[in-house]
Amino acid sequence: VFHDSPLLRHRYLVLTEGHLGPQWSKTANSAFRYLPERCAAVLDSSVAPATVEEVLGYGGGIPVVATLEEGLRHHPTALLIGIAPQGGGLPTSWRETLLGALRAGLDVVSGLHLFLADDPQLSAAAAEARARIFDLRRPPPDLPVATGLARETGALRVLTVGTDCNIGKMTAGLQLRGALRHAGFSTGFAATGQTGILIEGRGIAVDAVVADFIAGAAEKLVLESAPGNEILIVEGQGSLLHPGYSGVTLGLLHGTLPDAQVLCHQAGRRTIYGAGGAYDWVPIPPLSDVVRLYEAAIAPLQEAPVVGISLNTRGLAEAAARDAVRRAEDETGLPATDPVRFDTAPLVNALIEARERKSGGRR
Amino acid sequence: VFHDSPLLRHRYLVLTEGHLGPQWSKTANSAFRYLPERCAAVLDSSVAPATVEEVLGYGGGIPVVATLEEGLRHHPTALLIGIAPQGGGLPTSWRETLLGALRAGLDVVSGLHLFLADDPQLSAAAAEARARIFDLRRPPPDLPVATGLARETGALRVLTVGTDCNIGKMTAGLQLRGALRHAGFSTGFAATGQTGILIEGRGIAVDAVVADFIAGAAEKLVLESAPGNEILIVEGQGSLLHPGYSGVTLGLLHGTLPDAQVLCHQAGRRTIYGAGGAYDWVPIPPLSDVVRLYEAAIAPLQEAPVVGISLNTRGLAEAAARDAVRRAEDETGLPATDPVRFDTAPLVNALIEARERKSGGRR
Repeated sequence: VFHDSPLLRHRYLVLTEGHLGPQWSKTANSAFRYLPERCAAVLDSSVAPATVEEVLGYGGGIPVVATLEEGLRHHPTALLIGIAPQGGGLPTSWRETLLGALRAGLDVVSGLHLFLADDPQLSAAAAEARARIFDLRRPPPDLPVATGLARETGALRVLTVGTDCNIGKMTAGLQLRGALRHAGFSTGFAATGQTGILIEGRGIAVDAVVADFIAGAAEKLVLESAPGNEILIVEGQGSLLHPGYSGVTLGLLHGTLPDAQVLCHQAGRRTIYGAGGAYDWVPIPPLSDVVRLYEAAIAPLQEAPVVGISLNTRGLAEAAARDAVRRAEDETGLPATDPVRFDTAPLVNALIEARERKSGGRR
Repeated sequence: VFHDSPLLRHRYLVLTEGHLGPQWSKTANSAFRYLPERCAAVLDSSVAPATVEEVLGYGGGIPVVATLEEGLRHHPTALLIGIAPQGGGLPTSWRETLLGALRAGLDVVSGLHLFLADDPQLSAAAAEARARIFDLRRPPPDLPVATGLARETGALRVLTVGTDCNIGKMTAGLQLRGALRHAGFSTGFAATGQTGILIEGRGIAVDAVVADFIAGAAEKLVLESAPGNEILIVEGQGSLLHPGYSGVTLGLLHGTLPDAQVLCHQAGRRTIYGAGGAYDWVPIPPLSDVVRLYEAAIAPLQEAPVVGISLNTRGLAEAAARDAVRRAEDETGLPATDPVRFDTAPLVNALIEARERKSGGRR
């Protein structure tokens, strides 16, 4: 958790070496989308020279460079590690780049599970150059075991949940936060992953806390973020269907004790995604079954209906995308939209109605 | 994970200072039940002088002493920290006792979340006395993210699950392991908590791993423990109903990918237990609902029916206990027993049948 965070001012040299692409450079892609004016350049010798737009089809003219020296000419203030490999871990080939960046006076910002500030060589280099290392995933000390305190907060608590990882739970939450604010509702966003923390400058990476404290971390975040807001959107993580990460998802659900859930899905995805097809054996059930699964998982503690479907239609032509939205609505009987591509109103209205139900019509 | 573990040879001085009782000294109680011949004495000035039997109603003549000096006269080889407070943490008043024990040459065995070997003062004292500190909860390095490899093991994988924490999931597993071995089945027990690790000398405390690796820790345990066994019983943790610990429970379920589940419940418990009534707001649903909840939580990945109910009838007179067992059977349509107090056969037979279904009748 970083208050009044230097993270909100940094200009980044984004390191994606060999991984600049839509699937594996999640942190980088989110930086291009949400912090484009603070992305000075991208360091990836496998595609340089180029612009991000040329490689990804979006991202504008952010230059992709091949060496740290070239990157420094674009005046970054920090090196951002732009990918989040499964399980974390520091590719050994990056060490020289990190040391070079620190010696050049850049801060280093990392979302890896491995905490770079704990690396003696990197931390010594940082100290010598008076640079700082920000490990976005490092949990705050003294997390509590959750006891359900979140349910006493007055804001409408909304959790974005999903059929899989990396399908747009954070993006949906940020889009809805923006639209709800535009509609006049004071709306907070509680970041629970390294990318959300990068964007917001604060939060807790719930996948990086000790397992007994997952729900406690969510509870702490809600207690800190709800006051002063009519609506609080909590960034979901993982999926109840994911063989590797489902524990994080359920802990976050039980710690947040949401009043409403928004189910996120990538149109056309049929199995859980994993490198090398690791999860091809796990089919994603029909959306209406997934709705029931999420509602049943929290039912013993709290009624938390899924009030809408957020569809990620990336890669579909517009007609196919609109068709996918319609089918999701038909199948679940719930409002659906792609909140990046189409009107957010169906989901925004569902949340405003949920807010009115919770507050008894009072603002 | 400790192979060929010194933990299997230690004679313990069990520290329970102020907490000797059935509810909060879980580790100590399990040591009295499973390792009575290796409990040299108990250190608890709040009830000394006494025997464990006099305080708890069981545990035999293990002496309870008031000071470390008295305890040393009973020739322990290690000090065992006998309680596991919610969230872990070292009561500051215990530091002198621990330092004294180490200086006297005793090893220290701890199940706290706080790793004692990381405490500079304690580790220095240990080094000076050539004593060792065993942190039972310390995870092994390089845990994987689970990918479902457990489902490829040939042993019948059985997970003990529960309506709450601290109701006998480990005890049920150990009783069933013993009975299945007696019935001629090679049966392993995979310990997933500090107390199980203490008893078995190996295992992984899944509640102490980083959240992304809960299921991976379970998968690793299964892959190590299943080979050579016809049946593998995996010790359950927490409860899908528990607001603080449910994430651990689901991760363990998805990493284990059990073929069968045994649902453990304490007869008469109506709400989730917490100090100060912290979870009184969470009612335990009817057992048949809990059966459905556990089956639904794993259904997207694996069919894993609950095949029996293990009832903890502690505190009930025999007639009331037998009545509780009968009611559990009527309500769920499943075999039930208290495997500590009554015949284990109903559960053992259910597991043997599940084993035969899985192996197609082959041994």
